[in-house]
Amino acid sequence: MSKTIGVGLIGLGTVGGGVVRLLQDSPCSMRRRTGASLALKRVAVRDLGKSREVPVDASLLTGDAMALVRDPQVQMVVELTGAPQAYEWISEALRAGKDVVTANKALLAERGDELFRLALEKGADLMFEASVAGGIPIIRMLRNGLVANRVESLYGILNGTTNYILTQMTRGAGGYAETLRHAQEKGYAEPDPTLDVSGQDAAQKLAILCRIAFQTTGTAKQIFCEGIERIEPQDIEYARELGYTIKLLAIAKRRGEEVEARVHPVMVPSEALMANIHDVFNAIEVVGSSVGTQVFYGRGAGQMPTASAVVADMVELAERRNSGAGPAIGDMIIGDEATAIADMRQVELRYYLRALACDRPGVLAQIARVLAEERISIASVIQKERDLQGGTVPLIIVTHEAPEAGMQRALAALGRLDILEGQARVIRIEAL
Amino acid sequence: MSKTIGVGLIGLGTVGGGVVRLLQDSPCSMRRRTGASLALKRVAVRDLGKSREVPVDASLLTGDAMALVRDPQVQMVVELTGAPQAYEWISEALRAGKDVVTANKALLAERGDELFRLALEKGADLMFEASVAGGIPIIRMLRNGLVANRVESLYGILNGTTNYILTQMTRGAGGYAETLRHAQEKGYAEPDPTLDVSGQDAAQKLAILCRIAFQTTGTAKQIFCEGIERIEPQDIEYARELGYTIKLLAIAKRRGEEVEARVHPVMVPSEALMANIHDVFNAIEVVGSSVGTQVFYGRGAGQMPTASAVVADMVELAERRNSGAGPAIGDMIIGDEATAIADMRQVELRYYLRALACDRPGVLAQIARVLAEERISIASVIQKERDLQGGTVPLIIVTHEAPEAGMQRALAALGRLDILEGQARVIRIEAL
Repeated sequence: MSKTIGVGLIGLGTVGGGVVRLLQDSPCSMRRRTGASLALKRVAVRDLGKSREVPVDASLLTGDAMALVRDPQVQMVVELTGAPQAYEWISEALRAGKDVVTANKALLAERGDELFRLALEKGADLMFEASVAGGIPIIRMLRNGLVANRVESLYGILNGTTNYILTQMTRGAGGYAETLRHAQEKGYAEPDPTLDVSGQDAAQKLAILCRIAFQTTGTAKQIFCEGIERIEPQDIEYARELGYTIKLLAIAKRRGEEVEARVHPVMVPSEALMANIHDVFNAIEVVGSSVGTQVFYGRGAGQMPTASAVVADMVELAERRNSGAGPAIGDMIIGDEATAIADMRQVELRYYLRALACDRPGVLAQIARVLAEERISIASVIQKERDLQGGTVPLIIVTHEAPEAGMQRALAALGRLDILEGQARVIRIEAL
Repeated sequence: MSKTIGVGLIGLGTVGGGVVRLLQDSPCSMRRRTGASLALKRVAVRDLGKSREVPVDASLLTGDAMALVRDPQVQMVVELTGAPQAYEWISEALRAGKDVVTANKALLAERGDELFRLALEKGADLMFEASVAGGIPIIRMLRNGLVANRVESLYGILNGTTNYILTQMTRGAGGYAETLRHAQEKGYAEPDPTLDVSGQDAAQKLAILCRIAFQTTGTAKQIFCEGIERIEPQDIEYARELGYTIKLLAIAKRRGEEVEARVHPVMVPSEALMANIHDVFNAIEVVGSSVGTQVFYGRGAGQMPTASAVVADMVELAERRNSGAGPAIGDMIIGDEATAIADMRQVELRYYLRALACDRPGVLAQIARVLAEERISIASVIQKERDLQGGTVPLIIVTHEAPEAGMQRALAALGRLDILEGQARVIRIEAL
């Protein structure tokens, strides 16, 4: 009854190799899905001569991805390269009415709108479970499992590299630069770690999640983004004293008709579940109008977790095609009801502020006055013992809720006052 | 294009009322699923005259559930009563080719096989997300999100009542009976708590999960089940000293060609995520061959979480019907490939054993000999200070892995020795 769907795979790297392995091994759970017969028909690779860990029939290999897309034997295109040409391949496949599975978060975060619309127009599907949080089925969960919910807020640890670095720093592994170097040695950070440590990778993933959870159409560039590069061991130590743990969170929250969307280091209560997600693991906390708080935890990267997500999409698409169901892309198309991303300057947050203040009378009063001028109310102050070397005193201030714009103006004003050594540092606080 | 699916709702209790509310409010996420128009056509209730929290058009109400099932306006039956007649209603609906959504875990755990087969035969679907872990979309996750995995093991906190009682006892609220009474006062435990505290409720849920995750066809009665009634505050205290926390876990693990399936109090390492699931929350840890460890956390009961799960099933069924897709029940039918549930007596576990030993020379040697005769090797012993009142000494023994049958024989032998005050108590240990 069910006919076999011909698959064209673009990219035989780590994840592509994992997908081939799963298609070859086909766990029992897949074999029982009789509506989903998948046959690998073509595999596009950059280097035809390269030796491969996964055995693939050489006759399937091609160096021409576009020819693969156009091959009539290929009814489903699985794009796993992250290459700049991916947009061309995917849109060509969709134009031909072929379903596409991709893990390409950068592409979806920037040009998702065009691609989803093209898919709908051509009666094809575009699935992307693997683009966010690796093996955690968060996309399905938001689209299907939580369909009867208005998502109120979403907090994600979406980047394994930064979570690993912060976990290690929290365990006392040393400063940022040193911990990053260890992470690179262990293969948990790229040789050029910018995309991860700057928060951009998490922002791309958040852009994809916000489209589903909040009906935004914004790209990752509209998401406020601050990395972990300036977190210092003493911030982690002071956070601990205050009962907090520092995490890089991707946060989205309804705020009236708009949605806050931001990625930055956050102090979260140490007893919160999100504070206890360690090493390279990912987790997403979703607060839904019906279900309340839910948390999903697992590996956000790696060959087999990511391949698992890709294959889940492939199985679903094959079943849909074989059962004669139309594409499921409809809910990804957002028209007039698009939710705007709020201006970060107007977001109200609590702040941890750390400064090295000159040790002379009246300095705390001056700092307090600067904050008061921006109507930033102080919740607590910790003044540490004087620094042994210089004549400076570490000062930690925790504020009540205040608009981001006011805090930024206050920081600029403090910088002009000539009472601090270096710049005051700020970390935002979330109660969760 | 999409036609409206007529819904017949049996039961307008807490969850039924929540479903009606969601259909009336219809969050944006549901409205965007244009393939899924649902219209409430009939509502069967026990007492037509009862005043309702949720406003339902009186003309929809009927006292005759079977008439509702047979009503040609009703294309989808949603059964939310847990009544003994549910089997008749559901099977009648399926025989007529109507899709069914139910939250009836007891029915599915005992007669799921018959019902799934009937559904397949009649080209209808039977969905049951709400039957396990309330609002957590665990059924979908296992069937779809993790389809490319062989599930290796599964650990669930599936019963909110017992997790609440154990959490409170861990926080020092007192003994079992006292804590149960408080839970009853707060509405977290039923006036007759047997089904929950005995572990039977969790066993029913585990039977449903095992069918999906391990292809078992066994009923809840085949699952070894021990409740929390005999957990004492000192067990919780000794567990803490040993680095463990006591939880009631539903556990399933592959063991050769079979699967272990059991519900009982477990000592888990206190730093494990599962040890930190508090109060009435549920969580399920799944270890998949591709994804590794994943954890799903949320509310396992309550009006709106459960209604959220019911409505997610309704939306999916309406979309399938409207797109012309056949039923998705195929993967629930298990034939020759059924996995057997292992004999509990052969399961090998580590044990915590607590006894009040008579304080005289040679007693520890006698106990050690009894264990040695069953080839149970001792990992550690803690002997506490002598009890002030009697002449007894609390003795805690942690064993290495040993077969359950051997441990049970050892316990019986210890009972015959006349060196213990009362019976020795055992709690199983899981490393997670």
